[in-house]
Amino acid sequence: MEEDFFRSTGGGVTAPAGFTAAGVAAGIKREGLDLAVLHAGGPCTAAGVFTRNRVKAAPVLLDMERLAGGVARTVVINSGNANACNGPQGLADARACAREAGRLLRVPEEEVLVASTGVIGMPLPLETMLQGIAKACGELSPDGGQAAARAIMTTDTRPKERAVTFRLGDRLITVGGMAKGSGMIHPDMATLLGFVTTDAPVAPGDLRSLLTAAVEDSFNMITVDGDTSTNDLVLCLASGAAGGLPLLKGGDLDFFDIALRVVCRELARECAADGEGAGHLITVEVAGAASPGDARACARTVAGSSLVKTAVAGADANWGRVLCAAGYSGAVFEPGNASVWLGEVQVATGGAGLPFDEDRARRVLQQPQVTIRVDLGAGPYSATAWGCDLTAEYVRINASYRS
Amino acid sequence: MEEDFFRSTGGGVTAPAGFTAAGVAAGIKREGLDLAVLHAGGPCTAAGVFTRNRVKAAPVLLDMERLAGGVARTVVINSGNANACNGPQGLADARACAREAGRLLRVPEEEVLVASTGVIGMPLPLETMLQGIAKACGELSPDGGQAAARAIMTTDTRPKERAVTFRLGDRLITVGGMAKGSGMIHPDMATLLGFVTTDAPVAPGDLRSLLTAAVEDSFNMITVDGDTSTNDLVLCLASGAAGGLPLLKGGDLDFFDIALRVVCRELARECAADGEGAGHLITVEVAGAASPGDARACARTVAGSSLVKTAVAGADANWGRVLCAAGYSGAVFEPGNASVWLGEVQVATGGAGLPFDEDRARRVLQQPQVTIRVDLGAGPYSATAWGCDLTAEYVRINASYRS
Repeated sequence: MEEDFFRSTGGGVTAPAGFTAAGVAAGIKREGLDLAVLHAGGPCTAAGVFTRNRVKAAPVLLDMERLAGGVARTVVINSGNANACNGPQGLADARACAREAGRLLRVPEEEVLVASTGVIGMPLPLETMLQGIAKACGELSPDGGQAAARAIMTTDTRPKERAVTFRLGDRLITVGGMAKGSGMIHPDMATLLGFVTTDAPVAPGDLRSLLTAAVEDSFNMITVDGDTSTNDLVLCLASGAAGGLPLLKGGDLDFFDIALRVVCRELARECAADGEGAGHLITVEVAGAASPGDARACARTVAGSSLVKTAVAGADANWGRVLCAAGYSGAVFEPGNASVWLGEVQVATGGAGLPFDEDRARRVLQQPQVTIRVDLGAGPYSATAWGCDLTAEYVRINASYRS
Repeated sequence: MEEDFFRSTGGGVTAPAGFTAAGVAAGIKREGLDLAVLHAGGPCTAAGVFTRNRVKAAPVLLDMERLAGGVARTVVINSGNANACNGPQGLADARACAREAGRLLRVPEEEVLVASTGVIGMPLPLETMLQGIAKACGELSPDGGQAAARAIMTTDTRPKERAVTFRLGDRLITVGGMAKGSGMIHPDMATLLGFVTTDAPVAPGDLRSLLTAAVEDSFNMITVDGDTSTNDLVLCLASGAAGGLPLLKGGDLDFFDIALRVVCRELARECAADGEGAGHLITVEVAGAASPGDARACARTVAGSSLVKTAVAGADANWGRVLCAAGYSGAVFEPGNASVWLGEVQVATGGAGLPFDEDRARRVLQQPQVTIRVDLGAGPYSATAWGCDLTAEYVRINASYRS
């Protein structure tokens, strides 16, 4: 039913009505696109979800302050420099970038948000940024979504965009989005930036609560609470360009909620699948947990276990590592009641191994998408997390990331 | 002063009076020594510290039960099979091994402990184990410590032994130990087994509390609370063969405490330095924390950060990753008050970067031992943790560990 009612459409952040974007090569990175501007024709309802790291990058601090009012119109995003751990100068630089975009686009400075990703602790090259902002503001276009999605990439191998449409009476509503991958799925490697746009009319309080919940089940399931980078954020702008009054809870807002969740989940899955050096998307489905928190913690812990990740990289059906990770996840369960499946192959029951076809299990692990299922046998709750395998290529990328 | 009073001596678990050991090739692994027996001439005061993983291997469950009485005499240890996630059969097999060693050595079965390390979820090859136990019991010798230290290795590249002696009046007291490395220093890769012996006379309650505290500052600083393998344990046997009455708190027991801590710390450091694929021992010293718990959490989190580990592997002075890890460690601090050093090179102050000599920083990171210091500027507490770099070799080892 979801499939029929909600349609995937091409494009990303500029798919909804009322948005333009651009991506340019400003020269922050050695090569390639590195600066994006996302811009709405009028003021938008806006909300954000931010990293819980105690060390927050300057753009995060600035956006948290500006989103208190729930209104924004423009976002300046750069890759190649995180503008984190740069002290008061970092914050001044972030403000200067927003001010310049506001001046050029005739938007109040307070309605401009910023986001950065890249190396921590290097001063932002302000002149380069300002020139790039001018260039991008001159190239804003309703077709600029993909260039923007490319400009925010760091070690991502491909841009990540999604858009979903649905009808509410005579209104066509679109939710679009783009994201840059977590470097890798394991928590402390992720710098994750997500940007979601919609032409739906949504009240600020509703947008905030729906975005928070959608991020919790999507982007936050490819990372671990409190274990995120200095720069992580997900921003959402609702232009209202589809027309009409704000959608209401218990009615049309629920359809918007589903579309928002689909876009967030698909972008999050894309980020996991494109983890640094990754050869496989790992989906971990946990069932039978005693609480929703237990289900989430267990799914994330298994997906984040380096031993599980290396086992998938080597197509080694080492299911004991799955139970081991469940055991230290903090989830409450009796090991003697737990079961594990690799794809459709059940490999453990009652906390102990089953005879299984090694070749079949190996073939499961050799697929681009690998599903690991754990039933804790402790209750009715379930959760899904996404990760990727850990390969030598990951180490190569990160051993010389700054150089 | 410590240096003069306490002397490092050769050997390990058989250095203290009253202990014999053996290590044999039982055939559990494809090749090499894989079964050790450690044995005391008479009943010993005994204590243990065990994994907090909810999924506990059979040997852990058995030892926890048997150490309630605080007395033990013999330990059977195998590598190549963890005897974890094997259900009731696993526990029955562990008991059978202990029973056989007890029968051969004429020791009450309840005074025999067991420990295992290796693949999870594979049934213990009991006949092979029993034959190996017989062989090892026939080879017990006061010179058998090193063979035992070799037999407990899995992916370790070298055996790990330590012994320290000191004089109390006319008594010469020795504390010895052996350990098998955590596969790697990051928590969920560690299967860590430690065995400490002493000829000091120590009361059961004292041995338990001193061992727990010593492990907390040593072996537990190369892993993360609640994040340990199914098999981790540290056992301590005190034979009392040095003679005299049990050492008293506030007096001679304090000297024993220091020797115990030195042995545990040195073995833990060895395990970190010999992490899978490791090229560098990373020591993380955190100062200026608001609480002892914050200091410990921050040190362990930085030492465990994959991004810090890969930066060291690549000799890349990416200090922002250090602050980022501190930021998600849970430690309370104001980022604007934090400083970071790589070796003697200060790279950040006030939460922001300092100009520093890149070549000098690179030389620091190229040393076999790298020290990273963080001052949180939040209080008087400090802690030290040990880790190792993350290399492509690590991935190679773990992608095919079971195969």
